[in-house]
Amino acid sequence: MGKTDWKAEAKALKKKVKALKSRLEDPAADDQSAAKPAKAAKPVSPLAPKDGFPKLPLIKGVEFSAVEAGVRYQNRKDVMLVRLAPGTAMAGVFTRSSTRSGCVRDCQTKLATRVPAGAGAAIIVNSGNSNAFTGKVGDEAVAAVTGGVAEALGIPASRVFSSSTGVIGEPLPYERITAKIPALVADLREDAIDMAALAMMTTDTFPKGAAATVQGEGGPIHIAGIAKGSGMIAPDMATMLVYIFTDAKIAPVALQKMLSRNVDATFNSITVDSDTSTSDTLLLAATGQSPAAEVKGAVAKAFETALHGVMRDLALQVIRDGEGATKLVEIRVTGAETDTDAARVAFSIANSPLVKTAIAGQDPNWGRIVAAIGKSGANADRDRLSIRFGDILVAEKGWRNPKYREEDGANYMLQDELVIAVDLGLGRAKRSVWTCDLTNRYIEINADYRS
Amino acid sequence: MGKTDWKAEAKALKKKVKALKSRLEDPAADDQSAAKPAKAAKPVSPLAPKDGFPKLPLIKGVEFSAVEAGVRYQNRKDVMLVRLAPGTAMAGVFTRSSTRSGCVRDCQTKLATRVPAGAGAAIIVNSGNSNAFTGKVGDEAVAAVTGGVAEALGIPASRVFSSSTGVIGEPLPYERITAKIPALVADLREDAIDMAALAMMTTDTFPKGAAATVQGEGGPIHIAGIAKGSGMIAPDMATMLVYIFTDAKIAPVALQKMLSRNVDATFNSITVDSDTSTSDTLLLAATGQSPAAEVKGAVAKAFETALHGVMRDLALQVIRDGEGATKLVEIRVTGAETDTDAARVAFSIANSPLVKTAIAGQDPNWGRIVAAIGKSGANADRDRLSIRFGDILVAEKGWRNPKYREEDGANYMLQDELVIAVDLGLGRAKRSVWTCDLTNRYIEINADYRS
Repeated sequence: MGKTDWKAEAKALKKKVKALKSRLEDPAADDQSAAKPAKAAKPVSPLAPKDGFPKLPLIKGVEFSAVEAGVRYQNRKDVMLVRLAPGTAMAGVFTRSSTRSGCVRDCQTKLATRVPAGAGAAIIVNSGNSNAFTGKVGDEAVAAVTGGVAEALGIPASRVFSSSTGVIGEPLPYERITAKIPALVADLREDAIDMAALAMMTTDTFPKGAAATVQGEGGPIHIAGIAKGSGMIAPDMATMLVYIFTDAKIAPVALQKMLSRNVDATFNSITVDSDTSTSDTLLLAATGQSPAAEVKGAVAKAFETALHGVMRDLALQVIRDGEGATKLVEIRVTGAETDTDAARVAFSIANSPLVKTAIAGQDPNWGRIVAAIGKSGANADRDRLSIRFGDILVAEKGWRNPKYREEDGANYMLQDELVIAVDLGLGRAKRSVWTCDLTNRYIEINADYRS
Repeated sequence: MGKTDWKAEAKALKKKVKALKSRLEDPAADDQSAAKPAKAAKPVSPLAPKDGFPKLPLIKGVEFSAVEAGVRYQNRKDVMLVRLAPGTAMAGVFTRSSTRSGCVRDCQTKLATRVPAGAGAAIIVNSGNSNAFTGKVGDEAVAAVTGGVAEALGIPASRVFSSSTGVIGEPLPYERITAKIPALVADLREDAIDMAALAMMTTDTFPKGAAATVQGEGGPIHIAGIAKGSGMIAPDMATMLVYIFTDAKIAPVALQKMLSRNVDATFNSITVDSDTSTSDTLLLAATGQSPAAEVKGAVAKAFETALHGVMRDLALQVIRDGEGATKLVEIRVTGAETDTDAARVAFSIANSPLVKTAIAGQDPNWGRIVAAIGKSGANADRDRLSIRFGDILVAEKGWRNPKYREEDGANYMLQDELVIAVDLGLGRAKRSVWTCDLTNRYIEINADYRS
């Protein structure tokens, strides 16, 4: 952990001063409207992967397409379709919201339905309108869209899954989607997963993808996943949607178990703002078209580890694109009496507006961490817990570590990626969760009148 | 040496960036700097009571004083003392935080102690340092301060209650307080409650007071209370402290029951940011010096109603001074199956950053309310719940009210005080809670480096 490069820091700040000054002098520069297209491009999150969207492997049996349907956004692709070859095993996990959307309920019903022998499957997703809290009209929209896809692809409607993300409570103009189904079907290609990732973005500032390859018996097994979301989740425009594809040969029941086992430590361990969407959806499709034999034994272990890696990678990318985020923060809780207590403490810290604003201000304000532990409801003993920033021991035995120097904490806080480690000293349960800071930009994004 | 001190340079530049940013947000703010003292006065909350600090009745048997002890703040009173006459009954409720401060633990122990016959009592409060998470040194500080007051006033230490509010984790320089005890004692006066209210302020922008008078048998009974706090509560500098005084004749057990009965619907129904302090304290002292007879029967009812009114008034003043608040919002939940469900839904809405930022943006974004209901964990049925802004029916039967017009919602949102009413349509349980909006100013206050 190198010492802070104050020179570099000063230079970066100088640039900032210059930029701010020019904005002050020329307020018009701010609204950019004259020179730019109607909606100015959003600045990409400073935490975005440096190399952009990764090169994902083709997954045999999976094809993608995307179109401009004008559901809400203009001049960009906003509907994507995925066709999955006959024999594909499907698994999914969904938001637990009691006001979840019609799409989510529909997916849940269909996953519980007996699969017709040899049936293919499809996923259709639109951005701009979440079709949530739209009553029976909303359910009719889901039926129209999934029914239209089923007919066009010649598969049962019970095998067409759908997601919608965007504003809540507005009727979905679904005819705009159904009108584009022929174009979507005509355009299906194996190598268009990046377009699908783009089409489902809302407040996202970058498309999210991750992949892994495992050696199976007789050949490689590939996994490729895409995600959208800027929180867990800002329900208005920032639902989390995740689709992961693999050519593994694996039965639906085993696939679902594997997915469910790994969701707590990945997608259920991230939080931007403690708000959960009405539409969060994670679907995993296994086409079985890898040359490798059925996934079992040691290969199953390796496959699960790789799947976990892809899930975690995508989950962290969602946090990296957290609305207004400038810091990626891991809250690592150890020494709790129970798993529930570990999770309570971790989320209490990760969701504390005071902890998150302190991080935004690069303030090593560990007193707010103490307060967040205290309010969590978990068993904690002031005299046994310890708090670390990375490797720096900040507090233990009921008070500040006498050797802790505020400058060390302040230097640590300048980094883009932080680890706040709390050991409760009571037991062996642990939990890590990831969050981001809470900045003015979050308020700006979310206090903006919808338009 | 002529070498550039890049660290100092970076720090200076950071300040510049901050100043420029605030000018960008509020160009007018800048020109005030010349006229104001070094630390510009905080702007008073736009929601502050229009008539300023109310005229509170004198309570017989209660005296106040305040001094500048320089615990952390300079050039302002930061320690206050209250002397309570012999025979005073004491009651209290406190934060449930597992990392609560030494003062709070000390108060709790003392309230559970048998009161020496005819003993007086005292309360001493400092701002600027919360003495929380300061280990055994912190406990010694509490003993030194309360012991010093006990000796100076000639009362048992078990009758001296203390509170500290301010930064967490810094050792309390308690000698600065004990050195001022003689001055505090010398200055005690019945008519100085307003000074006491000022001395305990931290991020507060106005002092908070409320009063009531009840006709007892044989004469009037007075109640006067003061509070500090900008949240429920921002733990760093915004602990909630409340002291209520009455001359009622009432036994300690009856007083405690009355206090406990009324705290859920008042102080436990407010939230600025969902963060709970390590130091929240509410003390109620009854001196028994009213000419009226002992409080019972119909007078007890009237007294409890008046006490509830004072508690509620002070609680709402805390929200009116919520950090960065521009709107006072009541979340009124009815038709829940259970009290727990009603509270869950109310707090889920009141603590949702997305709901609070929408309110800040005057955006009638009811979809976010739907999402907050959904994530609360309470029983809810999309097709039975309804949402109102004041009297405006926004949504019911699973979708938007067809007669609802967005302009009506937008107009309603322009008001300073809002009611968001949710009926779950499932049962008879209800709960109202109060909150404020989440603005850039909250981020600024809390992302500021402590200094």
